[in-house]
Amino acid sequence: MSRQSNRTTDSKKMNSELFTLTYGALVTQLCKDYENDEEVNKQLDKMGYNIGVRLIEDFLARSSIGRCQDFRETADVIAKIAFKMYLGITPSVTNWSPAGDEFSLMLENNPLVDFVELPDNHSTLIYSNLLCGVLRGALEMVQMAVDVRFVQDTLRGDSVTEIRMKFIKRIEENLPAGDE
Amino acid sequence: MSRQSNRTTDSKKMNSELFTLTYGALVTQLCKDYENDEEVNKQLDKMGYNIGVRLIEDFLARSSIGRCQDFRETADVIAKIAFKMYLGITPSVTNWSPAGDEFSLMLENNPLVDFVELPDNHSTLIYSNLLCGVLRGALEMVQMAVDVRFVQDTLRGDSVTEIRMKFIKRIEENLPAGDE
Repeated sequence: MSRQSNRTTDSKKMNSELFTLTYGALVTQLCKDYENDEEVNKQLDKMGYNIGVRLIEDFLARSSIGRCQDFRETADVIAKIAFKMYLGITPSVTNWSPAGDEFSLMLENNPLVDFVELPDNHSTLIYSNLLCGVLRGALEMVQMAVDVRFVQDTLRGDSVTEIRMKFIKRIEENLPAGDE
Repeated sequence: MSRQSNRTTDSKKMNSELFTLTYGALVTQLCKDYENDEEVNKQLDKMGYNIGVRLIEDFLARSSIGRCQDFRETADVIAKIAFKMYLGITPSVTNWSPAGDEFSLMLENNPLVDFVELPDNHSTLIYSNLLCGVLRGALEMVQMAVDVRFVQDTLRGDSVTEIRMKFIKRIEENLPAGDE
């Protein structure tokens, strides 16, 4: 589906439950479509990427945020502004690597998994993996290559949900946007 | 995916754009999975139904709304409370049938279609058809059988998006909930 050029940035605030259940329908559909969890995880990441490369423009327009000075500022913007804006939550930023190139987003309350329990036959499903793709895609559009992955997940019995983000490199030229 | 019993009704307010793009990914996936638009429309309605039968409980808990006196009250609750809560918009309720058993929800601004243009080869796709299923499923859980369908859609060139709702009958006994 292509983007309309005439949309506005007027904001519609909504509760998260319809989104949560719709996301569940998407994951369920992918579980039907693909052979195994690994493929579903990959697909969710890819879909997320395609969403992220579009969402970033909306985010920049709404937030009026300029270029971040460093990865620490990027981390704060993601946690305190982007997550708050699009998911209604504010993860904490923790577990910085000594070199300052890795951190974790700790989600105490992941709206995507309200209503959800993983069935036994999907024990390796990374249910919320779309979020990793969104972050990766959005950051790529502001010239940052990052590795993003879940390292803990309450759905899989961990006490908290943790997304680990690792800075890989600054992308020098403005790559043309497009679906992966 | 099954529902957790211990979730709370704390609310996470979010902007609609991530939802909009995720919904787009779902529709795109269904367009890949199914042969034609008609099948996709059916699938969206069915997914919506399954979402509606779950969402109603959340809605009743949040809104503290009791049983509606008549279909007019139902219409107002849907437009002013439910749509506002889960999509951040308030459609107008219009075009009542003389018998009071049919009305239209006019959506000036459907958040599901931000960013979207229908490709030429999907001219019969009812892109937002999930919403019809949600309404049908949710109302069935409060003992109302209704027919819900899009009669106008800005995506297809109409000046407004119109969902037509027709009361069919009151469901006498409490049917067991379940996926269709």
